[in-house]
Amino acid sequence: MTKAPIYDRVALIGLGLIASSMALAIRQGGLAREITGHAKSAETRATALEIGLCDRVFDSAADAVEGADLIVLCVPVGAMEDVARAIAPKLKAGACVTDVGSVKRAVIEAVGPHLPADVAFVPGHPLAGTEHSGPRSGFATLFQNRWCLLTPTAQSTPDAIARLRALWEGMGAKVDEMEADHHDLVLAVVSHTPHLIAYTMVGVADHLRRVSNSEVIQYSASGFRDFTRIAASDPTMWRDVFLTNKDAVLDILGRFTEELFVLQRAIRMGDGAHLHEYFTRTRAIRRGIIEAGQDTAAPDFGRVAPTSGGGGGNPA
Amino acid sequence: MTKAPIYDRVALIGLGLIASSMALAIRQGGLAREITGHAKSAETRATALEIGLCDRVFDSAADAVEGADLIVLCVPVGAMEDVARAIAPKLKAGACVTDVGSVKRAVIEAVGPHLPADVAFVPGHPLAGTEHSGPRSGFATLFQNRWCLLTPTAQSTPDAIARLRALWEGMGAKVDEMEADHHDLVLAVVSHTPHLIAYTMVGVADHLRRVSNSEVIQYSASGFRDFTRIAASDPTMWRDVFLTNKDAVLDILGRFTEELFVLQRAIRMGDGAHLHEYFTRTRAIRRGIIEAGQDTAAPDFGRVAPTSGGGGGNPA
Repeated sequence: MTKAPIYDRVALIGLGLIASSMALAIRQGGLAREITGHAKSAETRATALEIGLCDRVFDSAADAVEGADLIVLCVPVGAMEDVARAIAPKLKAGACVTDVGSVKRAVIEAVGPHLPADVAFVPGHPLAGTEHSGPRSGFATLFQNRWCLLTPTAQSTPDAIARLRALWEGMGAKVDEMEADHHDLVLAVVSHTPHLIAYTMVGVADHLRRVSNSEVIQYSASGFRDFTRIAASDPTMWRDVFLTNKDAVLDILGRFTEELFVLQRAIRMGDGAHLHEYFTRTRAIRRGIIEAGQDTAAPDFGRVAPTSGGGGGNPA
Repeated sequence: MTKAPIYDRVALIGLGLIASSMALAIRQGGLAREITGHAKSAETRATALEIGLCDRVFDSAADAVEGADLIVLCVPVGAMEDVARAIAPKLKAGACVTDVGSVKRAVIEAVGPHLPADVAFVPGHPLAGTEHSGPRSGFATLFQNRWCLLTPTAQSTPDAIARLRALWEGMGAKVDEMEADHHDLVLAVVSHTPHLIAYTMVGVADHLRRVSNSEVIQYSASGFRDFTRIAASDPTMWRDVFLTNKDAVLDILGRFTEELFVLQRAIRMGDGAHLHEYFTRTRAIRRGIIEAGQDTAAPDFGRVAPTSGGGGGNPA
């Protein structure tokens, strides 16, 4: 190791896809001297021990954070408040608490009030994931070339922000800062609403009686297959996303329905010119995404593989 | 070549992604002695000649089909009738006409009536594609392990069906037969409606004023990126799909909107149990798709890469 670790001890609370990827990336980069961990489920804790994800695994979140310089909350957004309340008394003065939740305003409201004044709080959100979950689903390169968005509050000190930024950059991520509400709107557009739509479409296919499930499954070669991948993401995490980013998601859903009805009407009326113009415009947006480097034309479509099977399990 | 070619001469009408992939796969498998081709656009014809896609490229569809044993219509569904009318007088007795359109009832009605009685007609649809189009976008392995659905009619002879099946299997595809209307409903579920939804969501993101396009593009890491890939498909092809599979698409869209409204209401009411149950069910469907071998958990998600850049161009 040529560089000094950024943190002496990092505590990961919740040992799912994100936390297990962080553990592997932190270790690979020599970014912390020690990693402690806690998961609510005894099975997850046993797995984490078995595969050596953390140096030490604790049965309680409070014990896991004791003496830690950085505490990363990797539980579903709906579980953040309970965890914050539980760990608050054991937090070391000068420590920093962060999280990896997909919604930021709700996390700030759930966590912020419980933290002592001598502890910094820097909310964060790595834009990375796969449809797998659980402690075996992590891989060290998950954050490589992906964005991590930080949404600092009055509880964020410049030093705490700078160190957390260095940690994410050390794991290969690009870091940006934005205001929490803006984050929640942007994510409603690029992630939350698309997930809800994918879930819905997969549900429709499943309900249909005239088309058998085996046909749906067998012939899902093109569009539908991409939807099922999205719709396979962790149910608990996504339930909490929709419950806690309700306003932005309902706003975007309303716009989506309006747009869909216009296209639906064009189909009913046989307005080919309208459809062609619309589809040409969306194609151009795709080009912009490739040019912005968020994806490639290459076969893996910018994704990286989980090192092990993954699946199952709840990240909390 | 250890086996005799299945056809002496195959004529490809329209030289986009599917036709160029067929040309490469047919050549690789020694499945025909000669490949002729035609495309409406002079630029596409010039490209096809330049890259040696066909043995001979003709300025008119009628000339391209003269003497051919198999004629494959690879033009958008809306262009099928004009092509059928143009080639009918030049078709060889005993020849077989097939197509690769994404909708089958409309193609049967557009093409069937124009064909002479001594020519067989076997409508077909390979469930394979990428978001690229044009003569440079093809690759020989596009159909590998993908389904090709045939929807025989009274104009399909057992011999013509058997030879066409052998051709598709020779290109690596799995072949199934079904009734045309059933095909159109199945495809409305697994492909057409998902594409329309993806187009819509990408359009919504583009309209939004409070979220900049650069943000949408930059942070499209998860859900949205998959949507943009789907929404980048060829505009002409998709316009025709929606215009010619109108009834089935409107039926599925209606079901989709109902389902979406139920989920939207659950979000508004804070009904987490409903959301969790729904998302758990869709995750199970995804597992079924992986088990059915239509996708893998591996990094390329079962896709194969175009050999060259692709993009642009109209397949007709």
